[in-house]
Amino acid sequence: MRFTSEQRLDDGVLEREFTLGEIPGILWTPASASASAPAPLILLGHPGGQRKMYPRLVGRARHSAEDGFAAATIELPGSGDRPRSAAAEQARADLRRALQAGESVDDEIVDRLVLPLVEKAVPEWQAVLDALLSLPEIGGPVGYSGGVIAIGVRLAVVEPRISAAILFAGSFVPRTTFEEARQVTIPLHVLLQWDDEGNDRQAALDLFDAFGSKEKTLHANMGGHTGVPQFEGDASARFLTRHLR
Amino acid sequence: MRFTSEQRLDDGVLEREFTLGEIPGILWTPASASASAPAPLILLGHPGGQRKMYPRLVGRARHSAEDGFAAATIELPGSGDRPRSAAAEQARADLRRALQAGESVDDEIVDRLVLPLVEKAVPEWQAVLDALLSLPEIGGPVGYSGGVIAIGVRLAVVEPRISAAILFAGSFVPRTTFEEARQVTIPLHVLLQWDDEGNDRQAALDLFDAFGSKEKTLHANMGGHTGVPQFEGDASARFLTRHLR
Repeated sequence: MRFTSEQRLDDGVLEREFTLGEIPGILWTPASASASAPAPLILLGHPGGQRKMYPRLVGRARHSAEDGFAAATIELPGSGDRPRSAAAEQARADLRRALQAGESVDDEIVDRLVLPLVEKAVPEWQAVLDALLSLPEIGGPVGYSGGVIAIGVRLAVVEPRISAAILFAGSFVPRTTFEEARQVTIPLHVLLQWDDEGNDRQAALDLFDAFGSKEKTLHANMGGHTGVPQFEGDASARFLTRHLR
Repeated sequence: MRFTSEQRLDDGVLEREFTLGEIPGILWTPASASASAPAPLILLGHPGGQRKMYPRLVGRARHSAEDGFAAATIELPGSGDRPRSAAAEQARADLRRALQAGESVDDEIVDRLVLPLVEKAVPEWQAVLDALLSLPEIGGPVGYSGGVIAIGVRLAVVEPRISAAILFAGSFVPRTTFEEARQVTIPLHVLLQWDDEGNDRQAALDLFDAFGSKEKTLHANMGGHTGVPQFEGDASARFLTRHLR
């Protein structure tokens, strides 16, 4: 892991850009984090396009830092400055065409779009997690928050170092993700935007139902995809504090 | 309104039993409440049987008092020591018979059981609200929390002094309640126990969808009817604080 830039934000949070092999990412550590008081870590998922997502990511990271958590994000394969995959671009084009024609989106398109992303992104998150946890100022436990829900589900199943997860019920869930959901056992906090046009509400409720976790909470709010109310940021922080401190 | 008993709880909360005409109830006021600093008021609904419900009610009242809120509850018509209604008892017996036989419960039985209760309980709550708000130590605004959901919905529609409501998605919602739900405009916080055997989950989700309120949040958790997790008490308190302070 190579740090490529470093700046101290006005609230004392240290922001460092890094690369791990071909994976670019950002790490935020609270002023309080040190080798003698290592901070728990939140992995911040997003839909891809780290630069565009930066304002929201840094907001979530600063909120996490208030509770003493470090936070990290990485660019998704095929997004931002990372090389495009011809197959993913084709799937994205097919998806766009179906949506513009007002058609329902074939499972087959969803599989082509999301599954290769899951296959690539999950080991990348795990490699980054190895590197982050080797830093003296970062300790466990580890939480995951947000982003492409199929990635969050797979991580929750295969990565035992993740103790709790916040998932955004989003559109386009591959069928296999429903099966994997039954194997998830960590505490979950699931956010659903009730009127999200790009979202299949029933699929989101079915996925929530499928999770095997004994503690799972669904928070549904009005409004579209980006309209999550501000008070949910506080509710998410309390969920993480309950499980990671 | 006549106070029939008075005791100071160990946390300083003043608990007073009262009667208003034939309606028995309990009022809890925080130690801080006074004529110069009147407390906002939470109306605590419950399924009937104030004596049996007392441990949970006083717990909710003490939690409210921590945030500076007064809280009050009343016995439902036909419950506790109040005179039974032959028609309601018949409806209850018919309901029990249907449930024991494993049959789905007819809308007609639900209407016979719940609608007369709504018709009687809502004006009673309003009369008690008149009396409570005339006390110097009680001010506005007023919130409603819990109990038979059809009563909460009707109160939210007809009683303009109620500014926000917490509703428990429960079984046996009369069809007319779905229509009334569209007229509700106050902020709502709806609790749903995902695995509540006595509960029709789809009906609860449909009712949540029907509410006309711009701000409505659904919190779904695992477990049965009485298994609401403790952290939801804190979430409810924060909802009320956001809207009543």
